[in-house]
Amino acid sequence: MAKSYTHLLRAPDSPVKLSKLASDAHPGVDSKSEALQKLPKLAARLADLQERLFAQSRGGTEPARQSLLLVLQGMDTSGKGGTVKHVAGVMDPGGLHITSFKAPTKEELSHDFLWRIRKALPKPGVVGVFDRSHYEDVLIVRVRDLVPREQWELRYGLINEFEQELADQGTTVVKCFLHISRDTQKERLLARLDDPTKLWKYSTNDVAERKLWPAYKEAYQAALNLTSTETAPWYVIPADRKWYRNFAITNLLVETLERLDPKWPPAGYDIEEEKQRVLAS
Amino acid sequence: MAKSYTHLLRAPDSPVKLSKLASDAHPGVDSKSEALQKLPKLAARLADLQERLFAQSRGGTEPARQSLLLVLQGMDTSGKGGTVKHVAGVMDPGGLHITSFKAPTKEELSHDFLWRIRKALPKPGVVGVFDRSHYEDVLIVRVRDLVPREQWELRYGLINEFEQELADQGTTVVKCFLHISRDTQKERLLARLDDPTKLWKYSTNDVAERKLWPAYKEAYQAALNLTSTETAPWYVIPADRKWYRNFAITNLLVETLERLDPKWPPAGYDIEEEKQRVLAS
Repeated sequence: MAKSYTHLLRAPDSPVKLSKLASDAHPGVDSKSEALQKLPKLAARLADLQERLFAQSRGGTEPARQSLLLVLQGMDTSGKGGTVKHVAGVMDPGGLHITSFKAPTKEELSHDFLWRIRKALPKPGVVGVFDRSHYEDVLIVRVRDLVPREQWELRYGLINEFEQELADQGTTVVKCFLHISRDTQKERLLARLDDPTKLWKYSTNDVAERKLWPAYKEAYQAALNLTSTETAPWYVIPADRKWYRNFAITNLLVETLERLDPKWPPAGYDIEEEKQRVLAS
Repeated sequence: MAKSYTHLLRAPDSPVKLSKLASDAHPGVDSKSEALQKLPKLAARLADLQERLFAQSRGGTEPARQSLLLVLQGMDTSGKGGTVKHVAGVMDPGGLHITSFKAPTKEELSHDFLWRIRKALPKPGVVGVFDRSHYEDVLIVRVRDLVPREQWELRYGLINEFEQELADQGTTVVKCFLHISRDTQKERLLARLDDPTKLWKYSTNDVAERKLWPAYKEAYQAALNLTSTETAPWYVIPADRKWYRNFAITNLLVETLERLDPKWPPAGYDIEEEKQRVLAS
């Protein structure tokens, strides 16, 4: 691969200023047609790497423990659902574990904020996808004062410790912030209101959330500043263009899996002997 | 649709004799090329119906409770995983809940056999897919004497009651038996042993299971005879040809969803008013 998206898209060293990062850029590729032309081969590569990751956790005598966790965060309409759909279209569902985090239930609230996250972690060999995540607990929670400042302030450190723990267990975390402009959000909300098949995606609460855009921007910047570590860096994905968002994230996943370098496991049994057994059966 | 796959593939009235049902047939379509040519339009129709099912459970003032559950059963190598992959490639992962049932854990065994099944049921609006299911409790359990006969004999009735309960709650169950020949299984096992990327899919236990083919056939026949009800009929899918298996199941899902006739929900809010609010925000 000529260009490394891992480097192109990595969140800048603090302080991150989102207003300085273009949401309509397309680093690493010149045009939509170039991206679309490259995507099939890239998708096939991702599917192959995912299957190897899964296979090496199952076969052989010493199953590998590696797994991958893609965390998707972004404002309403930034394309988290669309990204999940794209990624799921490429990978084998057997090795994919998608979790969509909504407002926590009573039971979830009665535990610490990482409780429900831990329950949804990918097992060895699996690619987990989080549509929203533990970061909501320093985003909407911070913006809407859902817990006292003393409590959410501690969470940045807790998150870093948690993600280090994941890495130690073999889970590589890829955190993507889907960066859209405020105008793009307006367009996408209006598009929902203009399409009878999309009306159900609109909530009257969306405008109230949208009015908090500056507070959310600040909360996102704080999260990017305080939790982009060597172990689990944040990537800022310019997401005004859906084709670029999908292309960039596919590249990130491919590069991350290539670093993990999963291998087809050895048989763990005598192949010729088993052939004879099958033939005789 | 000219031909109804619901009727073509429905399990015959008891007694079912699997040896009388061709596993390499392709009822309803003349050739692979015809099926492949028809598949994209059919897949688009399935995706549309699935999105409506999901939407109507979310939007409007009176969310619908309908859901769909696809149950996949069949001998080893019959293509349960391949079917899940095909179906997942067509539908939106946000409205899809795939569960792969393995040998029950200690905790699962300490509850009644439907306990883990109930936990995995699709919520309103969702399409659930079971790769293996509660039927294992009258299949491998019966063949391998894992519980006494008095116990598994009762389960056919319990399953019928359970599936009636599901129907009463709005969940339509589509049960597919993936029917392959014993020769096809041999070919597929040998193919796994011949491909370094498939060795991990082979288990030395596969031959032992294969030797129980007649007992499994009997157990499947009993399940088809005793649990194919008006409410939740079994379909027998000729599955020696993967293209037909995928084509047939896509058709079944489309026809089932067409009978449910999910509708885009009304807005539940004043569209013009909301447009003004978005524009002003």
